[in-house]
Order: sequence, then C-alpha cells, then structure tokens
Amino acid sequence: MIATPFRFPVDLSLFEDTRHSPSLPTLERSLGRDDLKLQDFCIPVNPYFPTPELFASFRRHLEPILKYYPSGNESIARCLAEPLGLDPAAVVMGNGSTELITWIDLLLIEDHVATPVPTFGPWIDHPTALGKKVSVWPLEPKHDFELDVGAFAQFVRRVGADTVVLCNPNNPTGSYLDRGSVIYLLDDLADVKLIVVDESFIDFADETSVPSVAEEAARRSNVIVLKSLGKNCGLHGVRAGYAVAQPVLAHRLRAALPQWNVNAMAEALIRTFASHQSEYENARRCAVADRINTERGLRTLSELAVFPSRANYVYVRIPAPMDGAELRNWLLCEYGFLVRNCGNKLGSDSSYLRIAARPAELVDALIIALRSAFQQLRQDD
Amino acid sequence: MIATPFRFPVDLSLFEDTRHSPSLPTLERSLGRDDLKLQDFCIPVNPYFPTPELFASFRRHLEPILKYYPSGNESIARCLAEPLGLDPAAVVMGNGSTELITWIDLLLIEDHVATPVPTFGPWIDHPTALGKKVSVWPLEPKHDFELDVGAFAQFVRRVGADTVVLCNPNNPTGSYLDRGSVIYLLDDLADVKLIVVDESFIDFADETSVPSVAEEAARRSNVIVLKSLGKNCGLHGVRAGYAVAQPVLAHRLRAALPQWNVNAMAEALIRTFASHQSEYENARRCAVADRINTERGLRTLSELAVFPSRANYVYVRIPAPMDGAELRNWLLCEYGFLVRNCGNKLGSDSSYLRIAARPAELVDALIIALRSAFQQLRQDD
Repeated sequence: MIATPFRFPVDLSLFEDTRHSPSLPTLERSLGRDDLKLQDFCIPVNPYFPTPELFASFRRHLEPILKYYPSGNESIARCLAEPLGLDPAAVVMGNGSTELITWIDLLLIEDHVATPVPTFGPWIDHPTALGKKVSVWPLEPKHDFELDVGAFAQFVRRVGADTVVLCNPNNPTGSYLDRGSVIYLLDDLADVKLIVVDESFIDFADETSVPSVAEEAARRSNVIVLKSLGKNCGLHGVRAGYAVAQPVLAHRLRAALPQWNVNAMAEALIRTFASHQSEYENARRCAVADRINTERGLRTLSELAVFPSRANYVYVRIPAPMDGAELRNWLLCEYGFLVRNCGNKLGSDSSYLRIAARPAELVDALIIALRSAFQQLRQDD
Repeated sequence: MIATPFRFPVDLSLFEDTRHSPSLPTLERSLGRDDLKLQDFCIPVNPYFPTPELFASFRRHLEPILKYYPSGNESIARCLAEPLGLDPAAVVMGNGSTELITWIDLLLIEDHVATPVPTFGPWIDHPTALGKKVSVWPLEPKHDFELDVGAFAQFVRRVGADTVVLCNPNNPTGSYLDRGSVIYLLDDLADVKLIVVDESFIDFADETSVPSVAEEAARRSNVIVLKSLGKNCGLHGVRAGYAVAQPVLAHRLRAALPQWNVNAMAEALIRTFASHQSEYENARRCAVADRINTERGLRTLSELAVFPSRANYVYVRIPAPMDGAELRNWLLCEYGFLVRNCGNKLGSDSSYLRIAARPAELVDALIIALRSAFQQLRQDD
C-alpha cells in the first residue's frame, strides 16, 4: 500500500458511482481544489485535432450550428464517405459508436457473442443485459495480450457463437492484429452470422497509414466495422461514430435509428474532418508519436510491466502489493493526475492501469509521480 | 398560380429530398446567392434563449465541453428535474425527443396507435414503419382544429387502440387543449395501455405559466409526457428532449437507451437552462408575445385563413387557386423568406402553411411579401 500522509481531501465515491470513470469536469466540480490542476491520463483525448483555427471556426459559427436541425443520416454519410473512399450506402452514422453498438446488439446479434477479454465494456454488458450469452476468450499477459487468431476461431466454433466482436487495437490492452491477420480471421469465420470489428482506435495504430478493414466490411455480407470519430478527434462529448457494412446490412441498421440522431455539432465536426484531411493526418501522426513516446517513457520504470500498444493509450501492470484504485486516488490527490484503473473490467484486475498517451512534458511529469509512488512502496517494505 | 417573372435561380429539389424541410444552412449552401439574406419562418427558432451572454459562455468553454464524455442519463436528469419540481426518477433524457419517440414506439406501443391529425410526422410514420396500425382522427378547420375530447375518446375505444398520442399544443395547427381537458382525457382513458402527451411546444402556450401535465405523468402508470428542450430553447441542432413517466416506466425506457445518449453540448445547455431559470422565463414570455403578435399581424391579410395558435408558429390557409409549395418557393426566391408548406402532412394539404412566430420587424416584412403575392394573384384573375 502507498503511505498517504494526508487524508483524501475529496469525496472519491464518484469512482464507485459508475463503471465508467467520472469526467475531468465532473471531478473538478467535485474536488473544488484550486491548487490542483487536473491532467487527464484517463480519457485518450487527441490534443492535435481539431486545430486551434478549426476550434475558432466552431466558436464563430456556434449559433447557426446549434439553431438548425442537423442533416439526415445519409447526407452526413455522403460527406464522410468521400474522403474515406467508401461507398456512401455502406456508411451509417451514429450518435457515438455506443448508439450503433446498442442497435447492433438489438437487431443483429441472435443470441450468442464471442469476444476476447479484456475489452470495451459495452460489448459485454449490453448483450448480457438483453439476455444474450457472451463467451469470453481470455487474452494473456504472458503473450502481451495478443490474440492467437487460429485458437480464437476454434473457440468461436466450439462455443457455437453467432456473433464475434473484435476490438482492434484492443481496449484497454492496446494489443493489435495486423490487417492480414484480421482478414484471415474474416475468411476463416465467413460462415459466422456476424463479425463486428471495432476499430475505434485504428487511426492510432500506425504512423504511415490506417490499417482499417472497412472496405472489406463494405463487400462482405457478415462484417461490420465500427469507427469512432469522437475518439479519432478526441472529442468524446460530441458523440459521433459510424459503421461500415454491406449496403443491405447498412440500410437495415440505418432504418432502425432515430431521425436526426447525429447532432449538429457532430455534423460540423464531420464536415470539418472531411474537408481538412491533411490537418487530420498531421494530428493523427502527432498522436501516434505521443503514444510511442509515452510507451517508451513508461518502460523506464522498472517496477511497471508495460504492454506493447498500437492505440493512443498504454496498458500497464503495477507491482504487488500495490492496488490500482489506491494508486489512482493517490496520483489524483497528490498530483492532479487521473489514470484509468482497470479493476472493473472482465479479464483485467486492479493491478492494471490504462494510461492515455499525452505530449512528452506531461508524460515526464507522470513518470516522476509514478517513481515517487514506487519509492514510497520500497520504503514501506 | 403566382406569376414568377424570373426563372427560379436555384435547384429547389432540396424540398423533394425529404419529408422535412431543408435547413437554412443547407439552403444557403445550395442557393449561393449573396444578395439574398435568408429569414427562417419554417423552424420555430426561439431567438431569446440562450441569451448572448450564455452563448458567449458556451463559446468560451467549447473545448472542455466537447473533449470529455457527457454525464450519464440519470445525472443529467437530476440536474433538470430540480428546477422543474419533478422526481428525477421520473425523468428520462433523450437525444432529442425523436430518440424517445423511436424507443417508445419500439418498446411500449403494442400494435395500434390513435392520434388526431394533422400532427408531428414521426408519430405516424414511425409506428407505421414498424408495422403497427395508426388510426387517425381528423381535426377540422371549421372547428379551428380543436379536439373534441369526448368524441376522440369514443373514437379511441371504437378502433380499439392500445396507445393514444396527443400533441399539445398540436403541431402544425397550434391548436390547444387546456390542462383540465387533458386531465379529463387521461381520466377517461385510464384503462388505455399508454397515452403519450407530446408537449414539445407547451412552454409557448401561455404568458403567465406553463400548463404542462408532466406531474400527472409522473404519478399515472400509463402516461408519458414528452418535452423538447431543443424546441423550448430554439436549438434544434443540439438534440435534447426528455420524457416524464412513472419511475417504473421511466426506468424501462432509460435502461433501453444507448449509454451517453445525451451529447455534452446538450448537457451544457441543460445545466445552463437549469441554473438560469429567470432568463429562460423571460425568453419564454418574449416568444409567447411574438406568437401573439405574429398571429395578429397575419390576421390583417384578409386573403389568409389564420387559425388560433398556442405554440410558437401559426397555421394558415392560403386562398385558392394558390399552391403552398409554389408560394413557398416564390417567397424564398423573391424575398429569402422560408415558410413551411404542409402539403406533405397527413390531414393537411398544400393550401396550408406553418409560419414560425418571429420578432415584429420580421413579421412586418413577411406580411408585405404575402400582400405582394396576393396582389399578383388578383391581377392574374
């Protein structure tokens, strides 16, 4: 345990309220400590897009953006599909990828999902809440949480799942399947009713290109690729995600969604994203560089087990007997640093943290804080 | 027909693309006429809230608003319920009231809806698309589209509907049932499985108070009241609505909705609305005064049949043989004024327009434009 020379000055019960960490603004409201500047290493915010100029444009046009109904789903999909080189009929816009997950679960999953764990919580919680079976395939730290594609395909057949969900890169582990391996899996499981590849973090996988399988989804009848524009642009409040699927399947999903499901701020972001691809590409590369640097920096701490990541966060294991929730609280109260403890994720435990990739000076500050925590731990021994 | 001394300089097929009118920004993009300042008499925008100071605050805080996940549904409901004097457990937040309509249709309507017409399109289109029966009760111009509550209740029983939908004030007619008559109807139909009272425009019904039946919904097991914050605040792009129902029913609806369904800009608006009730009340009264003035102004045109309205728009019938779509196009191209032609609404026809209430100087300008159109019509005779 870390010695805490002070009583926690704040009510940390916020972390118990929900399966999701409280947001920085919520924590700031609750902390009420002006001396502490909070820094977010929990939500993987992309600080490079929209650029300050694009944000200024949003501010200038805020009134007309908010006053009028957004465009319809198909109109926004057309705008987004062009720069991505996708058939607009294959693109379905969502109020965040979570809305698409909800409707995929409801409409398209028969009764049995198979997925590697740990993974993004809603892929387990939501089908379970609908009374569907979820079979989980544990990823192992000794293999850096990498998926053995052949063994997983055998598992899918053995349990008889009708749906497979694969997050790539995986959340929270950051582990990654290259494009060839994903296509091998899609081929191998071509007879499975539905395969969802959640590519919410794929834009951060590689500096040189985005190894998405979206165009495979657009031409296969049983594959949906999910993307999160909120995550790509680090604007989680906007709620903007999309699915790519064969037009027949895409139409079925789109027809079920509420009208005007994409809000006008999200539409403005999507139109900006579509018309400012070079700025986005530059931002994307900076975010990848930050992740590479964050991972390298964390590896200088011998006490941490650092797992290779291709997303914009790094999954780490802290040394026993330290507890992740206690370390999170200590970092928050001592330094104002918020990290994600993964103790509430199936297939993880509270010795794991997910640390968002951030610019170098912030990572350096976090490393100093973590070093101090580990020193205290040694002194306690 | 109106003589049009010019060829329409723009592609008006935008109006054919969708059942909903194109937005002003979409029209502006399409028109490409810098000489024409568009004025919206189609979407009932409330120009008085948020105040310029509150908009400035949104602009200042735009980055933190958009960067972080919004709060959960229950947390936002708690914030809103307090100033409204409602039990938070009875309040369900939606991504616009359209999201709530979608889920009410899916989860709660058994197989047969009864509703007066004309009414808000999704209440007819959406259940129909789900294969449910919709029985419509025509409201009549000779009675100013007012609902005969007793006759309607008999109609509901005769057709055997399990669900009743009542928009109050009604959209697009502006016709209104006072609170006592609504409660009489709720009592009379207490054995009907579900009654939805869509109060999207109730805040504009009365200068002195808001005659909502929300607190009746919170204590009756078969009633849902729907409200639209986007409409109240005239920010249709934000997507913010809510339902009020008995906590058991509210929980069922909330549990089905996607997580983080309310975006962070909507959350900011709701928190602002909750903490600036006196500014909102002032804005609400100004909007009611505009409607009273708009209705009075339109009545000075003897060619128009003007129906009494308690919403923030006025429903009018233009003289034969004028066509509403042609008049709309003419007003748009000659004056840049966009009105809503109601030719595509069940129970209406293209001799009806819905004209949004606007400040006096804009209404005066519209009246001059309409007078000019009617003069041309007389000259053609």
